[in-house]
Amino acid sequence: METAATGGVDTWFANPGTTELSLVAALDEVPSARAILGLFEGVCTGAADGYARMAGRPAATLLHLGPGLGNGLANLHNARRAGSGMLNVVGDHPTWHRAADAPLTTDVPMLASPMSDWVRTAGSAATLAGDAAEALAVAGAGGVATLVVPADCQWSPAPGGPLVPPAAPPRSAGDAAPTVAAALRGAERAVLLLGGSALSERGLRAAERVAAASGCRLLVETFPARLERGGGLPSPPRLAYFPDQAAAALADAGLLVLAGARDPVPFFGYPDGRRKLTAPGTQVLSAAAPTEDAERALEELADLAGAPPPRAPAAGQAGAPPAAAAAPARAGARPELPTGRLTVEALGAAVAACQPEGAIVVDEAVTSGVAYHAAAARAARHTVLSLTGGSIGFGPPCATGAAVACPDRHVINLQADGSAAYTLQALWTQAREQLHVTTVVCANRAYRILLVELQRSGMAAGGPATAALTDLGEPALDWASLARGFGVPAARAGTADELVTALRRALAEPGPYLVEALL
Amino acid sequence: METAATGGVDTWFANPGTTELSLVAALDEVPSARAILGLFEGVCTGAADGYARMAGRPAATLLHLGPGLGNGLANLHNARRAGSGMLNVVGDHPTWHRAADAPLTTDVPMLASPMSDWVRTAGSAATLAGDAAEALAVAGAGGVATLVVPADCQWSPAPGGPLVPPAAPPRSAGDAAPTVAAALRGAERAVLLLGGSALSERGLRAAERVAAASGCRLLVETFPARLERGGGLPSPPRLAYFPDQAAAALADAGLLVLAGARDPVPFFGYPDGRRKLTAPGTQVLSAAAPTEDAERALEELADLAGAPPPRAPAAGQAGAPPAAAAAPARAGARPELPTGRLTVEALGAAVAACQPEGAIVVDEAVTSGVAYHAAAARAARHTVLSLTGGSIGFGPPCATGAAVACPDRHVINLQADGSAAYTLQALWTQAREQLHVTTVVCANRAYRILLVELQRSGMAAGGPATAALTDLGEPALDWASLARGFGVPAARAGTADELVTALRRALAEPGPYLVEALL
Repeated sequence: METAATGGVDTWFANPGTTELSLVAALDEVPSARAILGLFEGVCTGAADGYARMAGRPAATLLHLGPGLGNGLANLHNARRAGSGMLNVVGDHPTWHRAADAPLTTDVPMLASPMSDWVRTAGSAATLAGDAAEALAVAGAGGVATLVVPADCQWSPAPGGPLVPPAAPPRSAGDAAPTVAAALRGAERAVLLLGGSALSERGLRAAERVAAASGCRLLVETFPARLERGGGLPSPPRLAYFPDQAAAALADAGLLVLAGARDPVPFFGYPDGRRKLTAPGTQVLSAAAPTEDAERALEELADLAGAPPPRAPAAGQAGAPPAAAAAPARAGARPELPTGRLTVEALGAAVAACQPEGAIVVDEAVTSGVAYHAAAARAARHTVLSLTGGSIGFGPPCATGAAVACPDRHVINLQADGSAAYTLQALWTQAREQLHVTTVVCANRAYRILLVELQRSGMAAGGPATAALTDLGEPALDWASLARGFGVPAARAGTADELVTALRRALAEPGPYLVEALL
Repeated sequence: METAATGGVDTWFANPGTTELSLVAALDEVPSARAILGLFEGVCTGAADGYARMAGRPAATLLHLGPGLGNGLANLHNARRAGSGMLNVVGDHPTWHRAADAPLTTDVPMLASPMSDWVRTAGSAATLAGDAAEALAVAGAGGVATLVVPADCQWSPAPGGPLVPPAAPPRSAGDAAPTVAAALRGAERAVLLLGGSALSERGLRAAERVAAASGCRLLVETFPARLERGGGLPSPPRLAYFPDQAAAALADAGLLVLAGARDPVPFFGYPDGRRKLTAPGTQVLSAAAPTEDAERALEELADLAGAPPPRAPAAGQAGAPPAAAAAPARAGARPELPTGRLTVEALGAAVAACQPEGAIVVDEAVTSGVAYHAAAARAARHTVLSLTGGSIGFGPPCATGAAVACPDRHVINLQADGSAAYTLQALWTQAREQLHVTTVVCANRAYRILLVELQRSGMAAGGPATAALTDLGEPALDWASLARGFGVPAARAGTADELVTALRRALAEPGPYLVEALL
């Protein structure tokens, strides 16, 4: 625990059990450590993800053996896909008790492997600090590091003090800029696809210079881990979710340049057999891999492309509130307040119009979020965190962790109702820690995305199983009642006007609030 | 899907996504199939466990790729430890899409392995029915069979009709009875530890005959998958949870005979290093392994031990309501109704006094359940399902599945509050399906078991981390509000009298009900 503190990890999202009590007792002895309870392990791993995205450094989790880890896997998956560093600590039976096959015995490392970048089971108390230091190095470089700690490695005496984890080496900007610049000069209809660190203010401004100088078109990856937006920032369109729409956006590109983004692939495979989103004739080049420094790579590229120097000084450290005053006021008018019927368009406009300067918007609205994304290009400056791994139940936990990382900013969790039901326990942690999170539940009372997929596939006229497995309206969930049950005040909005009123109230008050928007 | 129906699996606890829609469409074509939605995958796997325990045959699940399976692992673990057969179906990307490493790509078989008895990834649509038949054979024999079905194996044409899964062979009674009978004759202070199928009415009555003839003492395993109780049935004490107490109960045994139970081991390992619960001088013999027919083995043993023939004809088919009229009325008076302060003792007495004939009691009350267990020995005839694998969040889902399996019986979920918060989404399925489940939340507002463990270990005077990670009272969960949010009517009881009133009302009404008992 002291090694973690030495390595700068002071926030523990935890749900320990008997096999982790010695670690909890150790945590009591570390003055800088903050222990935050999640009522379900998926809350812990999702909160650590949100924390890392906003703080720019890892949080830790503390989970109870294989089943506790199992409960946390879905959001571990999202974190790994986001490149969110995490120290994921899982207790286990004492080494000498494994062979007994007691009721809670499982193969913890095997469970951890598919969702971790690094897995180790500690072998003794004496080597535990070294294991932690190695795990922290992985986490510091943006990896999910899972350290399994048998109980006897926790309670046995450990000689020596804490170790200092090695600092993560600075990210390289790579050496692709000259090649890419040359290709851009000769390319017809080039597209620059931005992801990862290219979506910071600095990255976006550099990308805008590249576009201005080379004539290339800008796109943002479909599900960015962290995207700066609003307040006059360049706001390129996002690559569409459905493969045919995404492929259409890329169809005429002679060159696709990737900056911090992966070569895009269909989110799901369909009977049409489409394997790629780019056309056969499109050349694909990488200016910066997702693990490289895309900001610097784009700046080099802009200079090589002959772009004039930037107009405003680059700003924006990880986790710092956006320097709104420095941004040129190019945004035009903020979205207008909607009135009347509560549609997804009205919902999107209401949130975009009401969100305060510097908001963090955790977007797991699925089908209800498209209209918001369109409206928010003109909103006040904000940060968007999206569902990187497709594993639903991400929003409320991620919002919790983001709010812990940034207590001075307001978090808005734009949240689909079906997905919210996976990890609604996060509301309790928001109440306990009095976090500034406003949850907007988009209550369409269906797994709408599945209905859309069914319609697209021609299977829409389903029978009783299809109906039973896509409808959430019988009975309707009462989200205000659920929120109050977890200690979060709540309101319900049936019209656009009621939604605006509720949002204003929610954003004016300290602590968490939930608004159920009846779509 | 037709192979599953042919094999007698007609109940699907499901939470599918895009990669399972072809299976959902296929389910629409199977008239006998019933699709039941869980708002979280842990509800589905836990419900399938409860269903199998009560129906005596497997249900199926349908889950969405690796993250969906991940969410279901904790209750899959409990099901496997209970010997609950299950057909666990998980969709995946089309085979040709795996290499693209799309956002939801994970190693599904690796995630499934630690919690499954059998895992296979389907290779083609043509071989899928054969895969299903093999999986059903495993499930029919009490195993968790996980079949991963890539989407192209779902939507491609499959020649041939459904297959008929091989029937599970009848369980053997083993051949240990003569050896065990001889050992019992010579043993001093013998103990017969009952588990698995020995805990049916027939098993318990046979065990009673063994005890009467041989003078051995009877014990029940600590966490039985299914235990028949009350209404005059023999009710041996359960082996204690804490290792020192369990070891004390076994300390003077010259012989320990296992009937359907495993050789008991400490649930957790502690710094005292205790590896075994039996004393060094205790001989351990198995009359029937957990996979064998312990009822028949015990009857053979009783005959060999010279017990007189049973007084009442053996009864009790798996899943059938208990034949209460045939049981001799040896129970004495039912527990008296408590009054006054609501303690765990009063809670236990209230439930034991109010529970109707033939109730199914799903016990995840943890520290609040000990007093109930003592009181319920004299209750009306009932069935107890307990937490076999130690993975909390078992109760509400298991109660859901048990109620689906036995619509004519009332299910009482005696439930710890901390554990309930893991899988509270099961309440919605209870409301949707109008299941006769009464949930009694034992609201002590703490992870009390951890406080007890801390006290026993001498770490009780913890600091801020210990306090933060064991307290559930800041803020207090409002369970009545949570239940109503999911469509379940609810009441709150602050005294024993209020609890009795609420229980009577809950048990008199159809459909689900939740009572929050403020301890």
